[in-house]
Amino acid sequence: MEVDLGHSSGKNHHLISYNNALELLFGLHKFVTLNDETITLENSLGRVLRGEVKALIDNPPADISSMDGYAINSFDDKLNGILRVVDVSAAGTPARAQVSPGSAVRIFTGAKLPQGSNSVIVQEEVTLIKKSEISINNPEKVSPNENVRRKGTDFIEGTTVKPGKIITPKEIMLFAAMGHEKLLVKQKPLISIISIGNELTKPGNLHKKNQIYSSNAYGISSLLRKLSCEPVIFPIARDNLESIKKSLDKASQNSDIIVTTGGASVGTYDLVKTAAKQLGLHLCFEKVNIRPGKPTFAGYLRNVPLIGLPGNPVSSYVCAQLFLLPLIMKIIGCKIDCPIISSAKLNAKMNPNGSRQNFVRANIVNDGGIRIVSPKDKQDSSLVKTLQESNCLIVRPPNDNIKNIDDLVDIIELI
Amino acid sequence: MEVDLGHSSGKNHHLISYNNALELLFGLHKFVTLNDETITLENSLGRVLRGEVKALIDNPPADISSMDGYAINSFDDKLNGILRVVDVSAAGTPARAQVSPGSAVRIFTGAKLPQGSNSVIVQEEVTLIKKSEISINNPEKVSPNENVRRKGTDFIEGTTVKPGKIITPKEIMLFAAMGHEKLLVKQKPLISIISIGNELTKPGNLHKKNQIYSSNAYGISSLLRKLSCEPVIFPIARDNLESIKKSLDKASQNSDIIVTTGGASVGTYDLVKTAAKQLGLHLCFEKVNIRPGKPTFAGYLRNVPLIGLPGNPVSSYVCAQLFLLPLIMKIIGCKIDCPIISSAKLNAKMNPNGSRQNFVRANIVNDGGIRIVSPKDKQDSSLVKTLQESNCLIVRPPNDNIKNIDDLVDIIELI
Repeated sequence: MEVDLGHSSGKNHHLISYNNALELLFGLHKFVTLNDETITLENSLGRVLRGEVKALIDNPPADISSMDGYAINSFDDKLNGILRVVDVSAAGTPARAQVSPGSAVRIFTGAKLPQGSNSVIVQEEVTLIKKSEISINNPEKVSPNENVRRKGTDFIEGTTVKPGKIITPKEIMLFAAMGHEKLLVKQKPLISIISIGNELTKPGNLHKKNQIYSSNAYGISSLLRKLSCEPVIFPIARDNLESIKKSLDKASQNSDIIVTTGGASVGTYDLVKTAAKQLGLHLCFEKVNIRPGKPTFAGYLRNVPLIGLPGNPVSSYVCAQLFLLPLIMKIIGCKIDCPIISSAKLNAKMNPNGSRQNFVRANIVNDGGIRIVSPKDKQDSSLVKTLQESNCLIVRPPNDNIKNIDDLVDIIELI
Repeated sequence: MEVDLGHSSGKNHHLISYNNALELLFGLHKFVTLNDETITLENSLGRVLRGEVKALIDNPPADISSMDGYAINSFDDKLNGILRVVDVSAAGTPARAQVSPGSAVRIFTGAKLPQGSNSVIVQEEVTLIKKSEISINNPEKVSPNENVRRKGTDFIEGTTVKPGKIITPKEIMLFAAMGHEKLLVKQKPLISIISIGNELTKPGNLHKKNQIYSSNAYGISSLLRKLSCEPVIFPIARDNLESIKKSLDKASQNSDIIVTTGGASVGTYDLVKTAAKQLGLHLCFEKVNIRPGKPTFAGYLRNVPLIGLPGNPVSSYVCAQLFLLPLIMKIIGCKIDCPIISSAKLNAKMNPNGSRQNFVRANIVNDGGIRIVSPKDKQDSSLVKTLQESNCLIVRPPNDNIKNIDDLVDIIELI
């Protein structure tokens, strides 16, 4: 048998740095225009706020009592005598009577202070004389504004929340309190995920010898769902130009971003770039100076950003976090730096790093106010189980020196 | 006007500790039986795994190459001569030929090692002689198992993942790799949320004077959605027994848990416990020695657990995290301690704490491997905006001493 050895066409490509790749990737942002849409508050969890949200009311809407007690006027000369209770003020049912010298109004938590009153004496500080009559136990201690929540202390009408945030439950509560039932958000980006490989079979299928179950698309689509995107898992494409082109062609017609996994390394059987180029791919970069994920590439195909991730599950999942997520954050208009890099103390010695920026699977724990990170022993990019057991990546710069226990390292938390 | 002053019926109730309340609350777990259901992998994000997941295959399924190169036998005497390349092994398309003395097989990443081979020489270490002939640049350096991923290194057939975990994207990837398209999970608990108060109006409505927008139900329901529960927001109930009983009656017919907000304090206008008791509520506790949230109560109504949260938005949201969440975790079978308490270093002095366990709204940041927490200046339980700006609670025990900068304090991260 004669064999075409087809040594890598891409072998001598310049490896660009992760930061440079990210910058080039962000340039693809301009190809995607997501519309805004108005949705109900209840459906807005995890979406990105587009418009300013303005409070429609003051909160509280008036001076209100923070306790159950009696509304009085602290300047009333008759406070050390018997006070006649002239009315009741409850939340939503304010008193009609006002507080005049020698009188008080029974008041409950959240109720509006009646006219003429400026303070609330808690009921434990009051003695009941007879029906509708009280005396204050320590009238000399009374001062203005006791147990009063002043109008607008939480927020005043017109207070705004700025757009560009991912909406959390606490924010939904705030927007409700501000009076809004609907919010303007960005539409969910539709992201097509194409897995490529003759060795792949769908989970749930009977597997044949040497096949492995396709897992990258499921991991990435779940990650995307968690970020309120709309992932579409394409049927597995096979290792031939026709199959890959068919998928890319279809995806390019109806996606905000296309993601491929597999087929992004060197060698004659790595066809995805060739297929995409035949359809008109403009490459932004190919091969990044990182581990895992060196073969990652990106470009645009018919004005749709395309990110080519490696086929190894761990590489594809890690690179989805390193490349796809930051691009999505830009596209949905979320104003956070992504990936978020923080730091932690090492729990183990690490050897000097090689020439590639290394993203080491690791586990971070909180211990007495300190964040402690332990790298995993096994770092091979085929180990899905190790990834599942990790919750962060230690970021090691190219040619990083040896690291010792207690040294501070950069980390990226894994979603 | 004659006024019924109705001083608190509940005034002298014993305040139980948070931990005791939690223990009593966990007793309600027995009233809820959620069925199991089988759902697709793609829909399983955030659900709780019920059955063990067993790997259906070894991963990798055979010894495979981790690089593009040539499969050889490291014990071959002819390695320092010219090797004839007799076949190609690609992922999913293994070689038919085997490696015999003086021969090699072109191999790509993820491909099965051919029979007779035990090592892979990367293509950069090989010189192409002519079509189908190569020489190894440094044959003396060749050793067994180079660039080989051994069968089953990631996991072997039968490797199990235990139930009782909330399913993450990384786990979905692992379950896919193990061959599963469907998973057994707990059904989502259906949780009815009833807001009570004459002062409340629905977000989106025009507000009348002294009204405030109902926000608790929206905050809590979003929290519940985030935890993959099924929240149902009931119409606002009014401050009268009939209105509250009508809602409770309806909720008790079709809920796994009922949550009320408002109407849980003392005073004649706090009617929810009375209404629930008239329908048959068995109380487990009422009034807890905490701030915020003292009026929180819990019990069961017609065998449905009921948690009564305070009406103040901040108290209700905080207490949803302190009481509702731990109960939900028990009910869905999630084996984590809840709430999760960790620690952080204080960034400000704190006064001695009073007699109630205090959950102080605060912000935690990571700074050079240290977790630093800053309490919010304003702690009034009506301040929704302060809550929105907080990301954790500092837990202060009853009668806690003064705390100084750099002291370690317990914290609960807010969802």
